[in-house]
Amino acid sequence: MSEKLYTHFRVTISEPWIAHVEINRTDKLNAIIPEVWLELRTVFDNLSTDPSVRAVVFSGSGERAFSVGIDLKWASKEGSPFNPRPDDHVDPARRATTLRRLGVEFQECITSIEKCEKPVICVLHGFALGMAADLCSAADIRICAKDTIFCVKEVDIGIASDIGILARLPKVVGSYSWVKDVAMTGRNFDADEARREGFVSSILPTKKDALGEAFRIARNLSEKSPVAVQTVKHFLDHSRDRTVAEGLQYQMAYNTAMIQTNDIPVAMKALISKRVPTFEKL
Amino acid sequence: MSEKLYTHFRVTISEPWIAHVEINRTDKLNAIIPEVWLELRTVFDNLSTDPSVRAVVFSGSGERAFSVGIDLKWASKEGSPFNPRPDDHVDPARRATTLRRLGVEFQECITSIEKCEKPVICVLHGFALGMAADLCSAADIRICAKDTIFCVKEVDIGIASDIGILARLPKVVGSYSWVKDVAMTGRNFDADEARREGFVSSILPTKKDALGEAFRIARNLSEKSPVAVQTVKHFLDHSRDRTVAEGLQYQMAYNTAMIQTNDIPVAMKALISKRVPTFEKL
Amino acid sequence: MSEKLYTHFRVTISEPWIAHVEINRTDKLNAIIPEVWLELRTVFDNLSTDPSVRAVVFSGSGERAFSVGIDLKWASKEGSPFNPRPDDHVDPARRATTLRRLGVEFQECITSIEKCEKPVICVLHGFALGMAADLCSAADIRICAKDTIFCVKEVDIGIASDIGILARLPKVVGSYSWVKDVAMTGRNFDADEARREGFVSSILPTKKDALGEAFRIARNLSEKSPVAVQTVKHFLDHSRDRTVAEGLQYQMAYNTAMIQTNDIPVAMKALISKRVPTFEKL
Amino acid sequence: MSEKLYTHFRVTISEPWIAHVEINRTDKLNAIIPEVWLELRTVFDNLSTDPSVRAVVFSGSGERAFSVGIDLKWASKEGSPFNPRPDDHVDPARRATTLRRLGVEFQECITSIEKCEKPVICVLHGFALGMAADLCSAADIRICAKDTIFCVKEVDIGIASDIGILARLPKVVGSYSWVKDVAMTGRNFDADEARREGFVSSILPTKKDALGEAFRIARNLSEKSPVAVQTVKHFLDHSRDRTVAEGLQYQMAYNTAMIQTNDIPVAMKALISKRVPTFEKL
Amino acid sequence: MSEKLYTHFRVTISEPWIAHVEINRTDKLNAIIPEVWLELRTVFDNLSTDPSVRAVVFSGSGERAFSVGIDLKWASKEGSPFNPRPDDHVDPARRATTLRRLGVEFQECITSIEKCEKPVICVLHGFALGMAADLCSAADIRICAKDTIFCVKEVDIGIASDIGILARLPKVVGSYSWVKDVAMTGRNFDADEARREGFVSSILPTKKDALGEAFRIARNLSEKSPVAVQTVKHFLDHSRDRTVAEGLQYQMAYNTAMIQTNDIPVAMKALISKRVPTFEKL
Amino acid sequence: MSEKLYTHFRVTISEPWIAHVEINRTDKLNAIIPEVWLELRTVFDNLSTDPSVRAVVFSGSGERAFSVGIDLKWASKEGSPFNPRPDDHVDPARRATTLRRLGVEFQECITSIEKCEKPVICVLHGFALGMAADLCSAADIRICAKDTIFCVKEVDIGIASDIGILARLPKVVGSYSWVKDVAMTGRNFDADEARREGFVSSILPTKKDALGEAFRIARNLSEKSPVAVQTVKHFLDHSRDRTVAEGLQYQMAYNTAMIQTNDIPVAMKALISKRVPTFEKL
Repeated sequence: MSEKLYTHFRVTISEPWIAHVEINRTDKLNAIIPEVWLELRTVFDNLSTDPSVRAVVFSGSGERAFSVGIDLKWASKEGSPFNPRPDDHVDPARRATTLRRLGVEFQECITSIEKCEKPVICVLHGFALGMAADLCSAADIRICAKDTIFCVKEVDIGIASDIGILARLPKVVGSYSWVKDVAMTGRNFDADEARREGFVSSILPTKKDALGEAFRIARNLSEKSPVAVQTVKHFLDHSRDRTVAEGLQYQMAYNTAMIQTNDIPVAMKALISKRVPTFEKL
Repeated sequence: MSEKLYTHFRVTISEPWIAHVEINRTDKLNAIIPEVWLELRTVFDNLSTDPSVRAVVFSGSGERAFSVGIDLKWASKEGSPFNPRPDDHVDPARRATTLRRLGVEFQECITSIEKCEKPVICVLHGFALGMAADLCSAADIRICAKDTIFCVKEVDIGIASDIGILARLPKVVGSYSWVKDVAMTGRNFDADEARREGFVSSILPTKKDALGEAFRIARNLSEKSPVAVQTVKHFLDHSRDRTVAEGLQYQMAYNTAMIQTNDIPVAMKALISKRVPTFEKL
Repeated sequence: MSEKLYTHFRVTISEPWIAHVEINRTDKLNAIIPEVWLELRTVFDNLSTDPSVRAVVFSGSGERAFSVGIDLKWASKEGSPFNPRPDDHVDPARRATTLRRLGVEFQECITSIEKCEKPVICVLHGFALGMAADLCSAADIRICAKDTIFCVKEVDIGIASDIGILARLPKVVGSYSWVKDVAMTGRNFDADEARREGFVSSILPTKKDALGEAFRIARNLSEKSPVAVQTVKHFLDHSRDRTVAEGLQYQMAYNTAMIQTNDIPVAMKALISKRVPTFEKL
Repeated sequence: MSEKLYTHFRVTISEPWIAHVEINRTDKLNAIIPEVWLELRTVFDNLSTDPSVRAVVFSGSGERAFSVGIDLKWASKEGSPFNPRPDDHVDPARRATTLRRLGVEFQECITSIEKCEKPVICVLHGFALGMAADLCSAADIRICAKDTIFCVKEVDIGIASDIGILARLPKVVGSYSWVKDVAMTGRNFDADEARREGFVSSILPTKKDALGEAFRIARNLSEKSPVAVQTVKHFLDHSRDRTVAEGLQYQMAYNTAMIQTNDIPVAMKALISKRVPTFEKL
Repeated sequence: MSEKLYTHFRVTISEPWIAHVEINRTDKLNAIIPEVWLELRTVFDNLSTDPSVRAVVFSGSGERAFSVGIDLKWASKEGSPFNPRPDDHVDPARRATTLRRLGVEFQECITSIEKCEKPVICVLHGFALGMAADLCSAADIRICAKDTIFCVKEVDIGIASDIGILARLPKVVGSYSWVKDVAMTGRNFDADEARREGFVSSILPTKKDALGEAFRIARNLSEKSPVAVQTVKHFLDHSRDRTVAEGLQYQMAYNTAMIQTNDIPVAMKALISKRVPTFEKL
Repeated sequence: MSEKLYTHFRVTISEPWIAHVEINRTDKLNAIIPEVWLELRTVFDNLSTDPSVRAVVFSGSGERAFSVGIDLKWASKEGSPFNPRPDDHVDPARRATTLRRLGVEFQECITSIEKCEKPVICVLHGFALGMAADLCSAADIRICAKDTIFCVKEVDIGIASDIGILARLPKVVGSYSWVKDVAMTGRNFDADEARREGFVSSILPTKKDALGEAFRIARNLSEKSPVAVQTVKHFLDHSRDRTVAEGLQYQMAYNTAMIQTNDIPVAMKALISKRVPTFEKL
């Protein structure tokens, strides 16, 4: 078992192939400040190419919240991007340029979860407010505890979120009427509603149960060919955004290398003989 | 309270910020003729930039129908686009040109609901047939009364609708098998099925209840920053149609002006002090 | 009644306008080998322009399986694309070229179901594993028997499927978390789960009932204007993949010819007089 | 011969089928103010569907300039979009909203030249500065007099043009290095350079000669099938912006109506018998 | 030396790796009828995967014409797609469907030149009218004899071409003003103009010289790694139609197999030692 | 004057606002190894946001070459990506993954020139082979000395370049026939041909003259509003890749912040009074 302690994250590998990433600001209910999202990128970029990891479980530390979203204390402080100091640049085009540079980096940090080559299973519990939605919508599989309270809160601080949730939500669930409802009103919704609308794929009684289920899925994934699992993730994200024809053409280009893998005969032999296969690191 | 009477619509502002648009052809069950869709565009274009409006409730007058769709009497009359007079232009390319010019304008009229900068909550009840689906699928939030009967009827008059529903339906609900089923068969579906498939986001017992719920949502929206609410609507419609990467890039470009708004400090202060904020007109 | 016996398919026309296509390898549980997918294309290309056909029911023969997917015996045999002979071309770029040519043809075979101008109703029962998902996701309407077991199995043989399911699944159901779950784990899911997630639009007690329901839908479709029904299919598939604006522009271009059809007055007259219309062949 | 005098334009039809549109602010060197671009849209929207017009020649009145671009006096006046009054809305998001509404309308006015169904031949002479480039790049064919001085001037007043030239220029000429050069430096270029880079397709000694050549082309176009000519314009503009595959699919959809035209046998008969054909109005 | 005689084409392999395809209707000036374009597809589909071919030279037989385009005798005959028999289907939607099926196949035949995996060098001479432009714009390199007369003739028979030239021309040359000019007027242009505008890349004095130059290029290409040459062709056609970012992503996916080729060390060794490399068949 | 010495680059600021970036491996004719492209990204990322820089001149040190492209010694060494060690990973899918990670980073390094917010003027001289084309095609303006020899060499080492040139070349010049010619044959072309085809926008007698011209352009650019100049660069690169409609929509979103800049009144006042304006840093 290894554990790596970042400033705001704890990354634990307690069983082969599975990394557990926890947001680790328990006393702040895992509220998010710039240092958090910058470090988040480092965490997921590292896991992306770490050959000893085949699946990631992503959760928030403590009992009360996955995350309450952006740290309002930070955001409302003079000097934050949302509250410039009187002596800050006042030319709107120059302020826009500063905001854009920060914002693009912010987007890239959130997107590092989606870009992570390994599957990411996000476990939600307690409060999952505002930026929590941006974070978890960039993960692959979302499951939650019964007590989870979700919301797309940014609208209540005068902002249309531009870091992920509004770009991903129309593609993550089916009912566009519901998407507009929760994104424009910023209202809370609970685990049952999240499940009914397809935002999460299962509900477990407690955070502990949800983590257990996430590890069960992660274990399952880590026993399969990492070439196949990671390519499936990439193909789905690529095709979600494109025509079926473009998706097919890209997949074929990509797969002409991937299906030359030795994992296929290994997997087929194992399947036929009903044994657990062993795959080389990736 | 103000009320504006168009020929086929009634637009009422009975409380601050909320406009109620009603199709007003009760005796025809709100059947639609060209004058209706042309006027619809005028109505929504005006509301789009009216600074005294922050949310729109859209419904059909009378107890029996949101709308029975296109007025079959008009459509089947000699001289309509579907039934040319014997002495009308007979060159198929020239008839096509006439049909295209009319059709493009028709599309723009329906799309004026989507383009309206303010959120539009559509309340459905009774019959909601044929073109009713084109209209409501261009709105943001759909809720309905228990008695609503829906259908995508055009196929039964020999037409594949080209004014909205077939372009929007695959993006409005999740089950593509269901989309194909109702759009190819033109069969009726009721409120429960509409809710289960995500076409509407809630069902209320009666039209009156549904209108009450729509006003409750509208009131909620109108208390928030209009900059934030209207930008959320625009971002979702933009991203629904594009890759996540394109969505993120556009949102950042757009938001560099919008997040310079004074609404953000106003909203944050209100949120922290738990008071209702007041926002400048937009 | 006509019946056409292909090597691996049976195509029966037992009532006007409706073709029944059955995969006909009962003893192999309809497992799929290259001859099957090549013939599949011939079957659907023929039906696409056969004027005596207005709807297609697509199912698997026998009681035990729609299809168990790719024939593992074939796939694991030396000399298959997944298991090259030691003396086969070993230059990876040359092997890639061979794989691409085969793969592109394979994709086209599956896509022939989607490209078939006539609506295709797929009836699933028993095992519907692996490539079964590629096949049925290219059909228009999916219904299933209570006993159906589905899975996106390819990942278990070390492959990210590149022939259809991963390009279509994100667009066929609403919950992207569920899509990632079933596609990355390859786990089984049953009829109820398939219905709840929108992958099928109805469940019937038995295969026989499901076939009955499919024929009921097919009969309904075949009584309508074939111009309208086939155009609806095409518009939905086109719009699923594009912006609403692109969808609307294309539909208008396409429809300027289609709405000059005589089917419209015929259909309107029938609708008003409540009689069953008769439409010319297409 | 007919002549229609708008406030800022003169539209003359001095021979069958050909409309001559002139910017008519000679004493201001055809400098452009909001009234000009709003009226421009009216002019081109009317010509677009006028059945007595088959080609449009577009030029600037007077000897000295096609147009010197935006009227700097207007632009620099307090209260213009570029120079808000101290008591104007100061919230940057609200000012952005006002600018966007104006700007989108401004774009639509320029684009009315491209959207005009009839071919537009633009004749340039003398000064063709700043917004002149936005205007002429939306036309179909550009020819110029020897004395023409071009530039993409907006950069010199601190603006990256957002009304057309920067969206169209990369698609109007071949050398992207040249595009960047003239658009970033705002430097002048003359007729010879414009021809060498492909921005104009021919140079004539004088404005009068250039107008003569434009009328010669217009006359040629007006003797052909208007169905064919107008469809060619539309196909090229559609395909310029899309993949070859998308272009081909759209063209086929569009043409299934257009090639049913009687103009084809009329044109073929004329071609074979070497007589001038006569085509019905469009 | 091998020679394969099709009905309307002659395909000669007179030196290693290079196929010479000639349209072989000399007495008709290589005018094109449906049999020609259907056979064209067969010719290029066969060459595409023929491992003994690495480059294709494409020309027209005889001294007078590459091709005069569509055979007007055929096109104007009663019963052709452009001149239906009085007793042909008269429902415009049904005629449209027939035209679309024919047209899509026609497009695919032309596109087989672009889809051919091997580079195609088109040699033009004499008349190169109408459909000749559709054919040669789908080739990779165009060179011509001094005497070549080009035109995009379709507009003169009342048709906006929908089989290739209007989808490709905006991407084949730089000056969009020139594109509009030649495509809307259908006027002739000569070799010098074609070279100046970039439509051809070189002019040779005679057809014989031009063929010589084409063989010189083909020989050069056939001495290089076929993996590299064919991938370059594919990458350029893919990127021409997409954003730079999409192009780069696709190329990387495709190349992960291709740059594992043994051709790279072979080519590098040859380059360093200045010897001619030998590459395995592809 | 400041000078920053990187390992492989020299960055000099010898006059206000203008950075001169030189590839600094003179003795290797500026041949490129991985350290070079990684450092290139650092150089351009730093310049991108350096407020004291408004234009970048990019050239190669020494008299003989801008760059001879990839260092063949490095590329052919055992252990390079093109020549794996016998004991390297042999599973083709795993090698593909390694190659993709390296390749994506390589692409990002080249693209840092295009992403650099400041205009980049590339001065070419002597040999400009292979990867030199990838580098300079990502710059904004290309000018060259009379003696420059260009080629797209990668094909001669068995590779279809996937790091930039094949994605950008179809959009950088007009003649697609010429693009295919030089990219498939890898043949040399000289300054005159580069100018004629639009690959460079001017030729100067010597490297020194070309540098002088580049500084003249850079000086011109640096006297303008940096808001305007940098936005023009961004708009052109965005629009090059998208439909005109998408380009216009994005530009308007972006500009609602940028045209609130105080640079506009400053620039207009200067223009009217014919004085040189002074703009705030960006």
